[in-house]
Amino acid sequence: MIYLDNAATTYPKPNCVLSAMRESLWLYGANPGRAGHKMAYETAEKMFAVREAVSDLFGLHAPERVIFTKNCTEALNFVIKGLAKKGGHFICSDLEHNAVMRPLEALKLAGISEWSAAKTGATDEETVVAFEKLVRNNTTAFVCTAASNVFGKVLPVEKLAAVAHKNKIPIVVDAAQSAGVLPFDLQKSGIDFLCAPGHKGLYGPMGTGVLLCNSDLPLSTLIEGGTGNFSAQLTQPAAYPERLESGTLNVPGILGLGAGVRFIQRSGIETVYEHEKRLIQKAYLALKNMQKILLYTDFESEQERFVPLLSFNLKGVPSEETGRLLSQRGIAVRAGLHCAGAAHRTYHTLESGTVRICPSVFTKEKDVNSLLNSLIQIAKAV
Amino acid sequence: MIYLDNAATTYPKPNCVLSAMRESLWLYGANPGRAGHKMAYETAEKMFAVREAVSDLFGLHAPERVIFTKNCTEALNFVIKGLAKKGGHFICSDLEHNAVMRPLEALKLAGISEWSAAKTGATDEETVVAFEKLVRNNTTAFVCTAASNVFGKVLPVEKLAAVAHKNKIPIVVDAAQSAGVLPFDLQKSGIDFLCAPGHKGLYGPMGTGVLLCNSDLPLSTLIEGGTGNFSAQLTQPAAYPERLESGTLNVPGILGLGAGVRFIQRSGIETVYEHEKRLIQKAYLALKNMQKILLYTDFESEQERFVPLLSFNLKGVPSEETGRLLSQRGIAVRAGLHCAGAAHRTYHTLESGTVRICPSVFTKEKDVNSLLNSLIQIAKAV
Repeated sequence: MIYLDNAATTYPKPNCVLSAMRESLWLYGANPGRAGHKMAYETAEKMFAVREAVSDLFGLHAPERVIFTKNCTEALNFVIKGLAKKGGHFICSDLEHNAVMRPLEALKLAGISEWSAAKTGATDEETVVAFEKLVRNNTTAFVCTAASNVFGKVLPVEKLAAVAHKNKIPIVVDAAQSAGVLPFDLQKSGIDFLCAPGHKGLYGPMGTGVLLCNSDLPLSTLIEGGTGNFSAQLTQPAAYPERLESGTLNVPGILGLGAGVRFIQRSGIETVYEHEKRLIQKAYLALKNMQKILLYTDFESEQERFVPLLSFNLKGVPSEETGRLLSQRGIAVRAGLHCAGAAHRTYHTLESGTVRICPSVFTKEKDVNSLLNSLIQIAKAV
Repeated sequence: MIYLDNAATTYPKPNCVLSAMRESLWLYGANPGRAGHKMAYETAEKMFAVREAVSDLFGLHAPERVIFTKNCTEALNFVIKGLAKKGGHFICSDLEHNAVMRPLEALKLAGISEWSAAKTGATDEETVVAFEKLVRNNTTAFVCTAASNVFGKVLPVEKLAAVAHKNKIPIVVDAAQSAGVLPFDLQKSGIDFLCAPGHKGLYGPMGTGVLLCNSDLPLSTLIEGGTGNFSAQLTQPAAYPERLESGTLNVPGILGLGAGVRFIQRSGIETVYEHEKRLIQKAYLALKNMQKILLYTDFESEQERFVPLLSFNLKGVPSEETGRLLSQRGIAVRAGLHCAGAAHRTYHTLESGTVRICPSVFTKEKDVNSLLNSLIQIAKAV
């Protein structure tokens, strides 16, 4: 199988991730923070080392503010609903994933707060102006993806952070398709809350995510329960990470994530990015020359404004059908809507969906060649 | 190490669980429900088989109503807050874990609903009467643990279900310490919602839990996001399981849980229970004859009213210190408060905490002997 569905989850995982998970089940099998025996302490130490690795990778320099979540969606829900105030208002972009749009809409339907979507522009400046124009007295926060999961477009989150702070509000960044691919330095960038999946560009297993709290703004809790501390209290402890980590954590997954993060640190985010960009660039240029292919982005002239993934369609063929025909030829891609109705609406692909390809650090040039050859054959046949 | 902290998480896991997780990372590494390629389908099929196994084990007979959660705490939050109505009222027992108490208190502090705790009695009848007396016109649901995680006491959830239904309200059961140890038949018992961890008596890895919805009462959502279907909609789909499963699922953990559930089915819940009960009975009888030991339950005369776990203290020694001394001798137990202030308050152990031991299917009689010998030595030395 040629796997080009890395934007859904990276596959395969590095060997070190598999080893870390296997090891965790034997050596770190106690419930961390729940007992004082040796294995419980050792497990807790290993878990803290993962907080440190994640904190380092994102320039947070505060491991206790790395919250382990089950996925990026949970992290986004925690921060969006944790910040929400009655009568408040959120501003997001018109490229957000349903992990942002659906929580915002749920808050609206519950009569808690409203939301507006800023139109992303051809330039960063247009996008920034669009956000700023929507700011009201009651605006609670900006919520913005760092890069579209469907079209790869990178949004100017640092510039948006500056505008947010000028207006005395925080910015929440969805790094679902950019963590591990684009460099982040939370302390320098001014990003207040960053949400990332563990199982995509960080090469951890599915079932992991992180919320990085680079802000002192208090977050109300969405889920409460046992935290292993202050157990006589009926309320959640105030301190991170326990405040936002109720119940038993996904120890094998998180230790796998730690190995993934260290793998990315060793590989170098820049090197990974360059490798993937080169592959997408190759695909882009070839697809551009195929008459039957529809492309939606200008990856050629604006490379630096895209993360390395690409959406396209075969003219006259439903995206799901193209996906199915590729699968028959042993090539795994995602087709249809990518859990991001807003982005599809913006790019007028809500009806058709798109075929999306995304490489990983393990993707080879010959994998892209196979895709291109298969598409040529499919285009001839349809 | 002699591991008697199985009430926090079972250790070790059966080999079949380790194999299933290892296999999942190679063979089922795609994001299920997110694409139409071969590995995505195969992963989705494997995940559905786990829903079927869980549904079978609990007599639910509706695999699509098995919701995968990150732990039992999340499952409890989903159902408690999913049922909560403005001006409503919950009734729980006085033995609940913080995974029940803290969400109830959060709803109270948010001005949404109130809660009352029913005093558990010496007999089931007393407990049932205590719940019934607290029913008001605005009572939303009963929330009750099937067995105390600190003292093992089993509560009459089937009788409580009957009273709840007589009052036209549902019952939510916390099976944290009983799933895999006590038999449940949801269709017969009338339990409306059952929450269970995957990593305790079901022998899955940490990071897994389930919510079983045996009721048509609609649950509002706590977390929204991508579900892989109806992506153009801004609201969550209505159908289970997607409604309550936003974002990428913990595939390796859930496939490990599936192996754990099948392991329990093969072993037989009754056989597992009898094995563990025999060990706790042995420990109980020996500890009862030790002058320096404080016990809190009458495991001897009321065996069937306890799940196999035991709390005790060494007179005059803080529980944490006993735990530390046991750990020095290579014995892992949990000491202190067990994330259940309410239960400790009920048993007057809020100051002291307790030392808790809990066997698993892998615990041997010699492990209990080692514990008893160590306690004799520690008691002599202090």
